[in-house]
Amino acid sequence: VSAARGGPPTPALVVDAAAAERNQAMAVSLLGKGQVLRPHFKAHKTTALARMQLAGGVTGFCCQTSWEALAMARAGFDDIMLTNQVVDPTALAELVEAAKLARLSALVDAGEHVDLLARAAKSAGRAIGVLIEVETGMKRCGVEADSDALLLLAEAIAGAPGLIFDGVQAYDGHVAGTADPVARRVAAARSAAIAQTAVDRLTAMGMKPRIVAGLSTAHMPFCAELDVWTDVQAGSYLLMDGIYSGYGDLPFERALMLEGTVIHASTGRFVINGGLKQFAADRGPPQWVGDMAAPARLSDEHCVVAAENHGLAIGDRARLQPRHLDPTINMHAALWLERDGAFERVAVDGRRTAEFEAGAI
Amino acid sequence: VSAARGGPPTPALVVDAAAAERNQAMAVSLLGKGQVLRPHFKAHKTTALARMQLAGGVTGFCCQTSWEALAMARAGFDDIMLTNQVVDPTALAELVEAAKLARLSALVDAGEHVDLLARAAKSAGRAIGVLIEVETGMKRCGVEADSDALLLLAEAIAGAPGLIFDGVQAYDGHVAGTADPVARRVAAARSAAIAQTAVDRLTAMGMKPRIVAGLSTAHMPFCAELDVWTDVQAGSYLLMDGIYSGYGDLPFERALMLEGTVIHASTGRFVINGGLKQFAADRGPPQWVGDMAAPARLSDEHCVVAAENHGLAIGDRARLQPRHLDPTINMHAALWLERDGAFERVAVDGRRTAEFEAGAI
Repeated sequence: VSAARGGPPTPALVVDAAAAERNQAMAVSLLGKGQVLRPHFKAHKTTALARMQLAGGVTGFCCQTSWEALAMARAGFDDIMLTNQVVDPTALAELVEAAKLARLSALVDAGEHVDLLARAAKSAGRAIGVLIEVETGMKRCGVEADSDALLLLAEAIAGAPGLIFDGVQAYDGHVAGTADPVARRVAAARSAAIAQTAVDRLTAMGMKPRIVAGLSTAHMPFCAELDVWTDVQAGSYLLMDGIYSGYGDLPFERALMLEGTVIHASTGRFVINGGLKQFAADRGPPQWVGDMAAPARLSDEHCVVAAENHGLAIGDRARLQPRHLDPTINMHAALWLERDGAFERVAVDGRRTAEFEAGAI
Repeated sequence: VSAARGGPPTPALVVDAAAAERNQAMAVSLLGKGQVLRPHFKAHKTTALARMQLAGGVTGFCCQTSWEALAMARAGFDDIMLTNQVVDPTALAELVEAAKLARLSALVDAGEHVDLLARAAKSAGRAIGVLIEVETGMKRCGVEADSDALLLLAEAIAGAPGLIFDGVQAYDGHVAGTADPVARRVAAARSAAIAQTAVDRLTAMGMKPRIVAGLSTAHMPFCAELDVWTDVQAGSYLLMDGIYSGYGDLPFERALMLEGTVIHASTGRFVINGGLKQFAADRGPPQWVGDMAAPARLSDEHCVVAAENHGLAIGDRARLQPRHLDPTINMHAALWLERDGAFERVAVDGRRTAEFEAGAI
């Protein structure tokens, strides 16, 4: 019989609240002069955790979708940077609602985005901040730092009513995805040079960026030297996942586990009541805390852990660390904050809004 | 400008309703003598689609969790087979609620499961059906067909008040996961021999299985020859996904696409507003219908498709086929049924129940 009996209904995501608070303090301690931590809400989509971050010394947040922005604005958060382009009409309507409630900014990398945001600002009756997304080598969105498009976009923003030029966003996700610390640091210096090019060219035309946003949890060990960035948009540091825990050089603790109930136990393996619908598996299966090297495999509602002498019986509970936290939490309606053996249920309230889910949007 | 403008808010899962109905008819046509189709609700978790299946000639369903069973029972469905072991106390409470409303059965592979189901039947005030899960080589749950445990379990069921012995469930997921048609057929014959062993041993002790459940969409081209199975618990056939579409020998149409809005378009690539939080990526990225071979990669809220001359502009819509449908639909609150260019929103109402999500369970 496991000591964890009496915990939340399973499968359940459990957050070690004290470890998350220590991660928050650690993240702030790593910032360079002139840098702020602007946590990425997309990581956990949970306003209760965002309030923990607020108490831990941050003022603004990032989010990745209009519905996350709206959830944050409705929960009373201000200074929300939507680090994405918004084009879908329903998403733009959500952005307008959020902009009525909070200071909001969003990204552009084409004139269409500038036009859409100007219309949104007009609908909201309130100015919206704009950042130009700069391509860092990730090959996703963004304009090239040395392109004419960068300057044309800046001019378009300057000429658009209702928009405030905030600066530049330059996120190098390919660098965040580099496990080796030395290779990551070298690659980050390349991204910094690209961001600096964009900053210099905009400054030369009289549009000095007030904000340069980017970086990630994987950059935090050396973020102070990446001083072109003013806003560190890290998200994973608070809870950590299997990918980043495996990097080895990130000074953050594992604070997120899925707790499952053992439904099958036999020689050489056990099975818990959680699978592909509770764990995102885009980067591989989760890891059992009892033996992080034990192979695990997922089907829809099962996770099979191959482990000799696992010592578990039907009805016991077992905890596994998800490999990728953002899409894992997105599958859950709630998280359980564990502190001194007590569990508090908090809603993952940044998923699509209730009106959308009910079909009213 | 795409003809698909005017469709649902994106990102949105769209179902080709007519294709799904053709898939339903095709599935029924493949059944052998004495076989019934018992569709797996876990695939789509959508009672509107289950009603389409009901209209297409099925009577009973499978589901994989207690909350799916409860959602089906509340929606008026009867004859629900929960093809899983239920151990968690909250899940058992949901199972009891479902059993009050509908004829329900569930799996066992250990005496603990028998005891828990007997208690659930007592709480529900209604008999619960039981199937013994037999291990087919998948190495997940189940007892070995030639083990003493099989017979001991049968005796335990026979002696448990409130339980009705329905038969055997023998699901060979490893065979379903075999793409090559010839290798799959050979492997399925091995599973059939294992299932037959269990059936023969139970029959010899006077407990002839009324139901032998198993198989999958991948078995359907030759399911008629797998006559040990009475109930074909296929799920994917109705909508299909990228995995099964890639098998080549399955006579079902692609009927599920994610429709996204293009947020970035440049030479050699475009990006839509859907990513790891809209597509399950455990078996790889989705495929763009414009060029199924074009490499796609996902981040949380982006899908980047690398395609020369894609012809798309910001604001256009693009459709991609998810690779794995069950965990993909699980990420969505709703599906959109498309018929003759009109869209009907239907709720994915088999996800965790509203009381659970609100913290009341």
